[in-house]
Amino acid sequence: MVDMSWPGCAKSLKGVILDMCGVLYDSGDGDGVAIPGSIEAVRKLKSSDLQLRFCTNETQATREKFVAKLGRLGFDISVSEVFSPAPAAIAVLKERGLRPHLLVYDGVLPEFDSVDKANPNCVVIGDAAEKFSYQNLNEAFRVLVGLDKPVLFSLGQGRYYKETDGLKLDVGVYMKALEYACDLKAEVIGKPSPMFFQSVLTDMGLQPHEALMIGDDLVNDVGGAQNCGMKGVQVRTGKYRLSDENHPTVTADGTVDNLAQAVDVILNQRGH
Amino acid sequence: MVDMSWPGCAKSLKGVILDMCGVLYDSGDGDGVAIPGSIEAVRKLKSSDLQLRFCTNETQATREKFVAKLGRLGFDISVSEVFSPAPAAIAVLKERGLRPHLLVYDGVLPEFDSVDKANPNCVVIGDAAEKFSYQNLNEAFRVLVGLDKPVLFSLGQGRYYKETDGLKLDVGVYMKALEYACDLKAEVIGKPSPMFFQSVLTDMGLQPHEALMIGDDLVNDVGGAQNCGMKGVQVRTGKYRLSDENHPTVTADGTVDNLAQAVDVILNQRGH
Repeated sequence: MVDMSWPGCAKSLKGVILDMCGVLYDSGDGDGVAIPGSIEAVRKLKSSDLQLRFCTNETQATREKFVAKLGRLGFDISVSEVFSPAPAAIAVLKERGLRPHLLVYDGVLPEFDSVDKANPNCVVIGDAAEKFSYQNLNEAFRVLVGLDKPVLFSLGQGRYYKETDGLKLDVGVYMKALEYACDLKAEVIGKPSPMFFQSVLTDMGLQPHEALMIGDDLVNDVGGAQNCGMKGVQVRTGKYRLSDENHPTVTADGTVDNLAQAVDVILNQRGH
Repeated sequence: MVDMSWPGCAKSLKGVILDMCGVLYDSGDGDGVAIPGSIEAVRKLKSSDLQLRFCTNETQATREKFVAKLGRLGFDISVSEVFSPAPAAIAVLKERGLRPHLLVYDGVLPEFDSVDKANPNCVVIGDAAEKFSYQNLNEAFRVLVGLDKPVLFSLGQGRYYKETDGLKLDVGVYMKALEYACDLKAEVIGKPSPMFFQSVLTDMGLQPHEALMIGDDLVNDVGGAQNCGMKGVQVRTGKYRLSDENHPTVTADGTVDNLAQAVDVILNQRGH
């Protein structure tokens, strides 16, 4: 009989998906800092027989710049292995003929170069950080209330994340703000959207039960993956909080101290 | 038989409560501008046999400065006639021994002079406008997540209001943002809180059915008053939008073009 619980399920895995911020590194001034053991853990996974992808709600930089930053921290990751919300959003915008008003971090703007932004008929918000000023949020609000059928896309719905100097509010907070202001429901692109996880599975050619998600965000990483039929393991780094282990609606399949421990447990189960 | 519907109900009224911004005046640069006919309408009510109070969620200035501004616009209103959230909040803070971290407009800070703000154990947000920066919202968030029992007070829960240069996001939007970030429910002080309307009725010595609320905000003015057993009439000025007349949950007892028309209808019913 196949063991479906953690860590026994590691034996039958074919792929692993890693969240990035809070799992690989903590963001902050400059490039941030790698979480101890995570560089080596990625290396071990890459040299194993498991497929590996990275799934992030990072929307402060283009994937190219983001991967270059991780390279400087010591991680060996390529752009094609990284799934982030901006490219997924662009696909949706083009498919539906929508022209966005963008409230996103300057660093991610180049991802949207190919998108028609004149006379906007929707709003796209990402983790804009300091750009979430009163004035900019007002501007996005005015675009939405001026539309017959207001459409708001949110690149992720995180509550907060951890930088080296403390917790910071994430895009989900401003999504809720605009939802209330305009009395509408945003469409979330990125984790925990099932469509987003499915696109990663499709890229690997795997069924959900063959893949494991490892993240620091209980609701968006672990819960989102579980909703897709994957296993979800939480690390006690990044935005992890003790109360996550008694969460009312989401229970991780496993909880480990950090990525290094998770990878050692997985590879140990697989007899490496 | 007593006519309980608008405008017949005006015959049996003993008091009228007026919202201020969007009913008396539109705010904006400087003092804003009086809405045509409203100065005369207030004068007519004051010389009638009806009691008159003003009920506002204004939290950008002390009541003294606010009343002085309205005086410059031509309104004859005294501080004791005005009910606003800051004094109500201070009463609650003192009663419960709470020390606030304040995220409010600079102009209203003097109202909180008498309140102990050291080592805060709750957060109070008002309509802070430009002070709702990413940094300031983060700071309020960090205070809340650092508390064992986080308490958030919101001075009103409005979505937006109208200034002379357009619609502006109101405090309720940031209340929802912090509620989501911290996974908590804010306590609203001000309209539409029943406690707030009741304090105005108590001051007039009236029962709810003896009083009428006139406002431009369908949910917070009209719906809030109706929840207390009062009649609620909406004016088609300020933040009024056509869709308010087909709102899914709140139906005004009457809708009039402006305060001048409302007062003429009321006084006409009463045989003036």
